[in-house]
Amino acid sequence: MQKLIKPQTLKGFRDYLPAAMLARERLIETARSVYRSYGFCPIDTPALEYTEILLGKGGDETDKQMFRFTDQGERDVSMRFDLTIPLARFSAQHLAEIGTPFRRYHIATVWRAEKPQKGRYREFMQCDFDTIGTESNASDVETLFVIHDLMRAIGFEKFTIRVNNRLVLNGLLEKLELAEQTTNVLRALDKLRKIGVDGVTAELMEKAGTTAEQAARVLDLVSLEGENRSIVGRLEEMLAGNPTGELGVARLKELLNMCDSAGINPDRVQLDVSIARGLDYYTGTIYETFLDELPGIGSVCSGGRYDNLAGLFTKEKLPGVGASLGLDRLLAAMEELGLVEQTATPAEVLVVAFDESHMADYLRIGRWLRENGIAAEVYTDAKQPGKQLKYADRKGFRLALIAGTNEFAAGEWQIKNLKAGNQQAVPEAALVETIRGLLTS
Amino acid sequence: MQKLIKPQTLKGFRDYLPAAMLARERLIETARSVYRSYGFCPIDTPALEYTEILLGKGGDETDKQMFRFTDQGERDVSMRFDLTIPLARFSAQHLAEIGTPFRRYHIATVWRAEKPQKGRYREFMQCDFDTIGTESNASDVETLFVIHDLMRAIGFEKFTIRVNNRLVLNGLLEKLELAEQTTNVLRALDKLRKIGVDGVTAELMEKAGTTAEQAARVLDLVSLEGENRSIVGRLEEMLAGNPTGELGVARLKELLNMCDSAGINPDRVQLDVSIARGLDYYTGTIYETFLDELPGIGSVCSGGRYDNLAGLFTKEKLPGVGASLGLDRLLAAMEELGLVEQTATPAEVLVVAFDESHMADYLRIGRWLRENGIAAEVYTDAKQPGKQLKYADRKGFRLALIAGTNEFAAGEWQIKNLKAGNQQAVPEAALVETIRGLLTS
Repeated sequence: MQKLIKPQTLKGFRDYLPAAMLARERLIETARSVYRSYGFCPIDTPALEYTEILLGKGGDETDKQMFRFTDQGERDVSMRFDLTIPLARFSAQHLAEIGTPFRRYHIATVWRAEKPQKGRYREFMQCDFDTIGTESNASDVETLFVIHDLMRAIGFEKFTIRVNNRLVLNGLLEKLELAEQTTNVLRALDKLRKIGVDGVTAELMEKAGTTAEQAARVLDLVSLEGENRSIVGRLEEMLAGNPTGELGVARLKELLNMCDSAGINPDRVQLDVSIARGLDYYTGTIYETFLDELPGIGSVCSGGRYDNLAGLFTKEKLPGVGASLGLDRLLAAMEELGLVEQTATPAEVLVVAFDESHMADYLRIGRWLRENGIAAEVYTDAKQPGKQLKYADRKGFRLALIAGTNEFAAGEWQIKNLKAGNQQAVPEAALVETIRGLLTS
Repeated sequence: MQKLIKPQTLKGFRDYLPAAMLARERLIETARSVYRSYGFCPIDTPALEYTEILLGKGGDETDKQMFRFTDQGERDVSMRFDLTIPLARFSAQHLAEIGTPFRRYHIATVWRAEKPQKGRYREFMQCDFDTIGTESNASDVETLFVIHDLMRAIGFEKFTIRVNNRLVLNGLLEKLELAEQTTNVLRALDKLRKIGVDGVTAELMEKAGTTAEQAARVLDLVSLEGENRSIVGRLEEMLAGNPTGELGVARLKELLNMCDSAGINPDRVQLDVSIARGLDYYTGTIYETFLDELPGIGSVCSGGRYDNLAGLFTKEKLPGVGASLGLDRLLAAMEELGLVEQTATPAEVLVVAFDESHMADYLRIGRWLRENGIAAEVYTDAKQPGKQLKYADRKGFRLALIAGTNEFAAGEWQIKNLKAGNQQAVPEAALVETIRGLLTS
């Protein structure tokens, strides 16, 4: 006998079984529907691209940890590790056809050859939306709207979208004549929660060459807390006279006003001057989204405004703004908060088919239910009803339809409510109506 | 200045722009919804697997043309080239958890390193559904129901599902004592349309070692034409006394009866003894689906029954039945038949935003429409209305909302019907209702 091959997935990769996949599909459908409601269009790009394109200017492959290889045509190719560089390449390549402003969403798998850790895989899905080709603050505002509506559509009510604008800190650094130290300052500030004010002060003085006074001014800015209006007031004072900083504050102020006028609950939007998100990429508004009940899992939807998306591929300057939904994090949170329906079947009704001679009736009734919008699976092996009902329980069906000799003679079906445990006989003509009633109750 | 990288995709790969992607997403949503209505569950498996697993027993990589490489952990890995072997591996690995019967659908990308041709790419999507762990003919019947309902849900009315059962020919070959020549016979029959009866007769005699009489009997069988009932009658005569063939005919007959009793239009199901679909894999019922208006594009949904899905990975025998929707072929056909909506936006309403001082109103009205279930994009740059209306036309929006100083003073919005070209002023309070009316008319 032939030796069996051990069925296994690669380290860092995983299968999605039905229950996990159903939750995932529902989340993706929700995201898609919110993105679409704002006019964001779907696009897709290849999983494989020229390595040169994915590496971009940096060439620092270790950062990106790509699955890279030489294909049959001796091309140096890699699997995409994010959806941002593909968007940059796509935009440069198809700019004439897509035009601007261009709103796209892209929900697709990416791969990273990094060391797998708990909850981190080498294959995962990203769920990005961006508006490119416009500097308008209204796009920044609508980006926040999308995040807000998305969180609610998923089922979250208690969450906080933290916003900032990179121009605010940039403005202060200009005022302090520290603009050239921006990267070092950001690196130090990034450690604020870890090493505290004293640690950051020391690092600012050591690595960014600031005076103690300059370090204190920077820390004053990023430590601002309180009501949005009062933070805005303080920022206006601190940045007075510096156009960069003033523009940042003005855009934040307008964003907050527009959220109010569009009816966004103000408790859900918090100005937070301490958030920075990466060192180089973002240049304007920044977003992070936290679940009030699960702050520890980190931001579930993050993004920001950038100046120039596709500078590697075109001279055309493409500013934009967007964000990315953290699918895996969100699914974990939804599960923890009881927002995931525990079912391993997309159908609600199981047609128990135990009398072989009536198989045609079971199949007929299944089709009839589906034609009336009721998802129904027919158990296609005429096994004992007990076994089929166990199957129904295990999968999470809500109702089972049962009929044998007596029922067929009477023109009836037994409807068993699998959650409640009770059962009723219903004439075939009343079946659809009765099932609809049971499913919506 | 830094040298630009040429934005391009790899040979055989392509980007999906919004109009193409919207059509694709709609088709996938339709397939998903039909699969789900029958209780098929989604699963997903990794894009990368151990090469050993994907190669299976054959080891004939040239057949499969995989993207194969050595990963950072020195593992021999490949990108999946279909969804069948991953299903086999998945079923063997998770059998205890998923149980049987198991109905799954899997809509995912696969990769083949073969020479690209017109309409054939190195990256494409497959859209499979299968019922495994059962030999019941009722699953074969429901597989046909799924294909049927899928075609109608997509929008096709005139199509033919051609069915056959491999046992029929096997039975005849047993009767003729040619069972060991099955592969050679199938190879010869596969050329029937190309080389005709004489050519096939010659090949049967030469390659399969048949007599002229045997060749004639085989050709008589596969050339049967006419009404389903009359073909069944002829098959019953031709296969009388051979249990294999009789079982094949009985299953086909039952399938036809169950289609009738479930209300499938009989014009859409045609018994066709000439279809074979591949040499080794299928062992029972076989399906091919043709569009009556576009027979030349070939089968758009094909599949069949197999004896043993996962023999490479487990001793457990897993019979099953399933089919695969040819997405790219279908999209081409839908386009040719005018079933694809030509639009590059998922939103129906564009809010023209030309008065910067009223941006908050434009954003507010956008959110209000969305809350009422109307997908609306706000043009977030306050450019001239003419430019924005051109944008709306190009993308395929149906309505544009316009308001300037006069309208805001009057509490009104202008609704421009972009297809009809006319325009009406509507008080803000009546906006949702009026738009709904216009969109459904």
